[in-house]
Amino acid sequence: MKHVLVIHGPNLNLLGTREPEHYGRVTLGEINRRLQQLAKELEVQLKIVQLNGEGEIVSSIAEQTKWADAILINPAAYTHTSVAIRDAIAASGLPAVEVHLSNIHEREEFRHDSYTAPVCKGQICGFGPESYLLGLRAAAQLAEKQGKTAN
Amino acid sequence: MKHVLVIHGPNLNLLGTREPEHYGRVTLGEINRRLQQLAKELEVQLKIVQLNGEGEIVSSIAEQTKWADAILINPAAYTHTSVAIRDAIAASGLPAVEVHLSNIHEREEFRHDSYTAPVCKGQICGFGPESYLLGLRAAAQLAEKQGKTAN
Amino acid sequence: MKHVLVIHGPNLNLLGTREPEHYGRVTLGEINRRLQQLAKELEVQLKIVQLNGEGEIVSSIAEQTKWADAILINPAAYTHTSVAIRDAIAASGLPAVEVHLSNIHEREEFRHDSYTAPVCKGQICGFGPESYLLGLRAAAQLAEKQGKTAN
Amino acid sequence: MKHVLVIHGPNLNLLGTREPEHYGRVTLGEINRRLQQLAKELEVQLKIVQLNGEGEIVSSIAEQTKWADAILINPAAYTHTSVAIRDAIAASGLPAVEVHLSNIHEREEFRHDSYTAPVCKGQICGFGPESYLLGLRAAAQLAEKQGKTAN
Amino acid sequence: MKHVLVIHGPNLNLLGTREPEHYGRVTLGEINRRLQQLAKELEVQLKIVQLNGEGEIVSSIAEQTKWADAILINPAAYTHTSVAIRDAIAASGLPAVEVHLSNIHEREEFRHDSYTAPVCKGQICGFGPESYLLGLRAAAQLAEKQGKTAN
Amino acid sequence: MKHVLVIHGPNLNLLGTREPEHYGRVTLGEINRRLQQLAKELEVQLKIVQLNGEGEIVSSIAEQTKWADAILINPAAYTHTSVAIRDAIAASGLPAVEVHLSNIHEREEFRHDSYTAPVCKGQICGFGPESYLLGLRAAAQLAEKQGKTAN
Amino acid sequence: MKHVLVIHGPNLNLLGTREPEHYGRVTLGEINRRLQQLAKELEVQLKIVQLNGEGEIVSSIAEQTKWADAILINPAAYTHTSVAIRDAIAASGLPAVEVHLSNIHEREEFRHDSYTAPVCKGQICGFGPESYLLGLRAAAQLAEKQGKTAN
Amino acid sequence: MKHVLVIHGPNLNLLGTREPEHYGRVTLGEINRRLQQLAKELEVQLKIVQLNGEGEIVSSIAEQTKWADAILINPAAYTHTSVAIRDAIAASGLPAVEVHLSNIHEREEFRHDSYTAPVCKGQICGFGPESYLLGLRAAAQLAEKQGKTAN
Amino acid sequence: MKHVLVIHGPNLNLLGTREPEHYGRVTLGEINRRLQQLAKELEVQLKIVQLNGEGEIVSSIAEQTKWADAILINPAAYTHTSVAIRDAIAASGLPAVEVHLSNIHEREEFRHDSYTAPVCKGQICGFGPESYLLGLRAAAQLAEKQGKTAN
Amino acid sequence: MKHVLVIHGPNLNLLGTREPEHYGRVTLGEINRRLQQLAKELEVQLKIVQLNGEGEIVSSIAEQTKWADAILINPAAYTHTSVAIRDAIAASGLPAVEVHLSNIHEREEFRHDSYTAPVCKGQICGFGPESYLLGLRAAAQLAEKQGKTAN
Amino acid sequence: MKHVLVIHGPNLNLLGTREPEHYGRVTLGEINRRLQQLAKELEVQLKIVQLNGEGEIVSSIAEQTKWADAILINPAAYTHTSVAIRDAIAASGLPAVEVHLSNIHEREEFRHDSYTAPVCKGQICGFGPESYLLGLRAAAQLAEKQGKTAN
Amino acid sequence: MKHVLVIHGPNLNLLGTREPEHYGRVTLGEINRRLQQLAKELEVQLKIVQLNGEGEIVSSIAEQTKWADAILINPAAYTHTSVAIRDAIAASGLPAVEVHLSNIHEREEFRHDSYTAPVCKGQICGFGPESYLLGLRAAAQLAEKQGKTAN
Repeated sequence: MKHVLVIHGPNLNLLGTREPEHYGRVTLGEINRRLQQLAKELEVQLKIVQLNGEGEIVSSIAEQTKWADAILINPAAYTHTSVAIRDAIAASGLPAVEVHLSNIHEREEFRHDSYTAPVCKGQICGFGPESYLLGLRAAAQLAEKQGKTAN
Repeated sequence: MKHVLVIHGPNLNLLGTREPEHYGRVTLGEINRRLQQLAKELEVQLKIVQLNGEGEIVSSIAEQTKWADAILINPAAYTHTSVAIRDAIAASGLPAVEVHLSNIHEREEFRHDSYTAPVCKGQICGFGPESYLLGLRAAAQLAEKQGKTAN
Repeated sequence: MKHVLVIHGPNLNLLGTREPEHYGRVTLGEINRRLQQLAKELEVQLKIVQLNGEGEIVSSIAEQTKWADAILINPAAYTHTSVAIRDAIAASGLPAVEVHLSNIHEREEFRHDSYTAPVCKGQICGFGPESYLLGLRAAAQLAEKQGKTAN
Repeated sequence: MKHVLVIHGPNLNLLGTREPEHYGRVTLGEINRRLQQLAKELEVQLKIVQLNGEGEIVSSIAEQTKWADAILINPAAYTHTSVAIRDAIAASGLPAVEVHLSNIHEREEFRHDSYTAPVCKGQICGFGPESYLLGLRAAAQLAEKQGKTAN
Repeated sequence: MKHVLVIHGPNLNLLGTREPEHYGRVTLGEINRRLQQLAKELEVQLKIVQLNGEGEIVSSIAEQTKWADAILINPAAYTHTSVAIRDAIAASGLPAVEVHLSNIHEREEFRHDSYTAPVCKGQICGFGPESYLLGLRAAAQLAEKQGKTAN
Repeated sequence: MKHVLVIHGPNLNLLGTREPEHYGRVTLGEINRRLQQLAKELEVQLKIVQLNGEGEIVSSIAEQTKWADAILINPAAYTHTSVAIRDAIAASGLPAVEVHLSNIHEREEFRHDSYTAPVCKGQICGFGPESYLLGLRAAAQLAEKQGKTAN
Repeated sequence: MKHVLVIHGPNLNLLGTREPEHYGRVTLGEINRRLQQLAKELEVQLKIVQLNGEGEIVSSIAEQTKWADAILINPAAYTHTSVAIRDAIAASGLPAVEVHLSNIHEREEFRHDSYTAPVCKGQICGFGPESYLLGLRAAAQLAEKQGKTAN
Repeated sequence: MKHVLVIHGPNLNLLGTREPEHYGRVTLGEINRRLQQLAKELEVQLKIVQLNGEGEIVSSIAEQTKWADAILINPAAYTHTSVAIRDAIAASGLPAVEVHLSNIHEREEFRHDSYTAPVCKGQICGFGPESYLLGLRAAAQLAEKQGKTAN
Repeated sequence: MKHVLVIHGPNLNLLGTREPEHYGRVTLGEINRRLQQLAKELEVQLKIVQLNGEGEIVSSIAEQTKWADAILINPAAYTHTSVAIRDAIAASGLPAVEVHLSNIHEREEFRHDSYTAPVCKGQICGFGPESYLLGLRAAAQLAEKQGKTAN
Repeated sequence: MKHVLVIHGPNLNLLGTREPEHYGRVTLGEINRRLQQLAKELEVQLKIVQLNGEGEIVSSIAEQTKWADAILINPAAYTHTSVAIRDAIAASGLPAVEVHLSNIHEREEFRHDSYTAPVCKGQICGFGPESYLLGLRAAAQLAEKQGKTAN
Repeated sequence: MKHVLVIHGPNLNLLGTREPEHYGRVTLGEINRRLQQLAKELEVQLKIVQLNGEGEIVSSIAEQTKWADAILINPAAYTHTSVAIRDAIAASGLPAVEVHLSNIHEREEFRHDSYTAPVCKGQICGFGPESYLLGLRAAAQLAEKQGKTAN
Repeated sequence: MKHVLVIHGPNLNLLGTREPEHYGRVTLGEINRRLQQLAKELEVQLKIVQLNGEGEIVSSIAEQTKWADAILINPAAYTHTSVAIRDAIAASGLPAVEVHLSNIHEREEFRHDSYTAPVCKGQICGFGPESYLLGLRAAAQLAEKQGKTAN
């Protein structure tokens, strides 16, 4: 059975309760529930964390590198400012999938560029919670190719 | 039954036969076959075109706006230069999904920006042919919300 | 009697039926009717085309250069991207008037610059369909100065 | 009867007597005469001023806001440097038409951008004295829509 | 008793009567009344002027340099375009406080930079009429430190 | 009684003991004492924290959102680099006041722009410790308007 | 015998009849005649096309890839805007030579950069019709190295 | 006898009494006295004005164009912001000499560029009051070449 | 005996085990061993930390300011993004030496600039683990000049 | 018989012996031999120099201006940094041809621009030693037009 | 008697014989003659050199630093590219005057900035040979203030 | 015994005698003495040159390429302007170490970038004469790895 590390970046704990007109009414708990359900279907095991600190995310990736076969990450605000998380993903050697709830291309200029995307396999944005589910499908496939088995 | 217009941009007819080390060995015909198979599963109907001309794509979107409930498009090189296709997508009023075979964020600087992404619902890139399949899933969902029925 | 070539650029065929809150409810047919009416009053003859392709506009200018005494053009999206149309206008040697329905100066940054305006005699923007009628008055005067007679 | 405030910006008093190869031989007096003649035809009343000072133009707009139904302005050099005139036009709440004798798009780079155009309804440039007459037609129409009556 | 020169820049005479949704319904007269009231409380004497001209503001600062112990200034549009007012403030040798009614950081890009702020002691923006009152408190303190007495 | 959350960003714990020629000799303890004294006078309750970590500030804002009616924040170095704190302030829905001891407009270029200012109500800078006291006055007023009561 | 595909881009059909002071009086027909004459001397066979459409040029390269051993192309306006032609040249795997009649380095800024040059073997500009003849010599040599024979 | 118009821009009336460490202790009166003395020696007649307003300078140039054979101008702050004064100098058709007391190249970045210098014959900066005297020598020579005599 | 604080920034704990083709096979433990050995030879005492969090590094510098006579720091990814660490180093008043394993000048554009270098005494990069040893020699000399003794 | 001055810029003496994978194995001596051979065929006389100093190249052009009818120059590194060589070529009044062994458009960004190309008649790059031979053909033709004879 | 070192930069030896429409018909010899004549009048001694090499100019300044009391330099093309000459002037500690024959502000963009001007006392440009004579007057005054005597 | 070529760039001959407050009182002779002493200790042989000319440095590198095993270079002003020296270092194939006396990151903006650093192994700056000694240690190690023996 393959392992996928799911990382929710800063402020995502507020999902569904804050600015619903912007981010919708689905909570992070609900997203995690749907992810677990799809994981069962795809036969992968998840480890899910929500972290506000840049250093915490860096450490988390390093700690789970042995366990995980792929990473599913929404770096949120750090997408546009963190060279450290970029380096951590690259250092892990794992295939990673970057996801965003909103379409970053129609937001402020400074959200168009991503430090982390170039070291991920691909990026999915704009579909709300569905971005995570599509991302998990991609991550599961990449984990399989990765060839590491977790028996 | 929902309708999805699938547009392959310039040079994609060469897929699988040219620069396979870059774009893989899967041909456009094979991608279309997989799309049709998934379409059957998702119960949507597809109309698939491959066009090299900027003006042709503009015309094609205008002509299919009535028939289609959603658009799945890989604008290829026009992603980065065509204001005309951007305007055509916006004018159609249809939800659109932009897909790319490669991860545009790790390629040349000029491929990082997209004229079309801001008027699409979202963007998926970097997963090879799988980008199209994930994109079709997203488009099918958006078509359903769009509420237009085709029976 | 003087001759004026009128060119409507990409997506203008959709006028009045799409995004009316943005571009108003007047259709292209109605604009053309008003242009013909004013043309009769100003005693000029019109040839009107609507083209989506960049190459088609380039060809059209070249083909009508002999017949026309002046050009009235709304290059739409190509205003901001087409060096080819700029070269075509310059190559024609005809006085040209650039018009826009909306005020391009209050829209997206990339619509502020125009490749075509520097090779036109002047530019009129922001007055909706009235932009065309003002433009035709300017074009008719320029055609007269041009001194070419058409009978 | 509608009212239009006509403002000529700095250095326009020299028109026709200086650099005729650049700005033509028509004097400001002649332009004003033609404007009055067309105003009679269009049944609008004009108030015409020529001002060299930025602050004077700001004050003039504020003072005539009650009287005027529309503004016809050639801000000349202040087009490219005055945020204060921009704010004055916006504050007046009146529809304004910006005109220029020359085609600003084919002159020095710093003349391509306009602080005032985004708060005007539209802009007309490049047709010499004719720019003013086309501008008055546009202003007269906008004044009518403005719905204020002056009787 | 300390002396504070209060300068309201261009268009501020229109306050409260124009664009109330943007600048609120408080008039300049009302702001001046509140300033005088607070001045009494803080035991400072005010000289208040509203000027539309850049040169007038420059002259006003020079004329009051002897009388004043501090300057409270809202340069409005000139904030972003006037080197002359910047030089006048620096030449006066007086401590100055720059205030703005609106939050200039959430408005157009060209309003983010200030020529005058670097030669003032500090800047206060975004609190509507309250910006002036906070500014007067700061100016009164700076005037005191300035050590000039006016008895 | 209204509640104001006061956040001192990174390095501010060193105030008064380091680089006194730059930041003065007033310690953070002294500033907090003056804030408490003014809070008593204005009848607001304060919760004061000093935090060096970006993630800690993000978490702190989220945790105090229920309790607080307004935020008074000196993001220090994070002003210019943190999208995460920007998002946290916006997500809180609370009125925030950004303060700086020094005049950021006369320092290095990279300190002129602020990520956080556009999501705050306003910004105060350049008055040393007095910046905090003026900021508290503004925050207290905004808290009152906010209408939340804490009884 | 080696094969060279010669492509003339948009507007080049007008050569010699339009703006002769800029592009000289030599027609495209005359250039083609000289190319054929030199081709005979160098023992290469030519296929010559003139195309206004970006997509047409893309298609033409794809269609002649089997037949041709080298490409001689003057992309004209598309030099500076077409990523599609760039990709087509790269996809063809053929050695290409880019030529220009005028010296693009002494013309407008936006003509200094070329999208197509980096995927060509080299570039020749500024020598009028002679640019084509020098370009054919280079293309003939590259075709030979290419080692494909056409028997 | 030749005529030279001498214009001192904004804030120069303060010379010698403010910021002497920056601009020296020589007053404007003293500079004018030295200019008159040198004028006598060079046999030219001077008309000297000091003006704080941009529009006033524009008007002054227009009014003296007939009388003057050359202009000696220190536009001070307006050097870097005024297109209107640039246009006024160009419109006058007179040879002009731009002078600055300080070396503008070692001051703030925004003082390095000059709107007015390109329409003057030359520029002299950095020599304090001596800049004016050198400038008068240059202006006197240019006036002579100008060939207008004033007898 | 002098004291040097050695700080390893984010991801450096992975040294030698990840991307060895990029960063070599020497582990952080090995580097620290060599540093201790050289420290003994140079008669300085070291305190060595490896920290992933930006705030943690800020706090660490503040806490060791009394103990340390000099700082040897490899800020890694934070070099290019952290104003907070820059402020912390400046606030400490200690001489600091910035080191990098790789030559940052031949890597991505965004790694060429350093926020921290301007507040350090100097910078050493490109020599792999040797960068640290050279850096320690420099830091030891600077500590000695600093004149603080630790006995 | 026409005369062509051939200038090889800095480091070109190392050709063929250093970095052969980059610049090929042909030495400068071999290139000169081929140039002499083609010169004989084209009936022109050559003077060939290789110079490492910018000033030496400037002097060399000035000294040979009388003798030469055209210049063939590979400015190498100075292409991108030398205004002095640009001025020297312009001052000579001779037609010049700029050549490069490699395709400068596919190398580092700073090698894309050329100070010298705008004052040359044309530029040839990317064909290795063949660039020189094509350049000599162009130079020979230009020399002939130049009309100077050397008998 | 004071000493002034006069340096003419690259290509100035060609003065008067090349491009007379641009630089006039006065030769460098004639300029030097006029300089010597004025030097006699001002009672200063000159040492005049013309150098094409950047390094030669650097060496020349170093060698004459003891002898000279002031420098009069026209760095020509090196004005815009040489940091080395800038450093040499600064290192000499002598007052320097930069002169240019033409008005650099109305020429190509890259000639507007000067590396050397910020380390000179002042700059004079645009008056042809007269620039040198005005420059010598300025240099003679500065030499006197310099207080070094040469007897 | 290994060989290291030491190159001091322009103006470094003035060290210690000019601007001591900036560059210290140590002369170049003293630095060279310390370098020789350390060379003896490290058992390497030095060849030391000081050159003001860019071309001279290029030639010097080419001439010593055979003899040297490593290069220690302070390109001084040429660091920021010379592509030619960059190319010379790259062509030599030798490991090079770039050193600077001052911390280039805290000086003028144009001194932050280095053309030469990307082709060196590493860079050391900011430690005064000690920069050279640290640089020699690095160069000696690199020379050894280079594996060339000189006996």
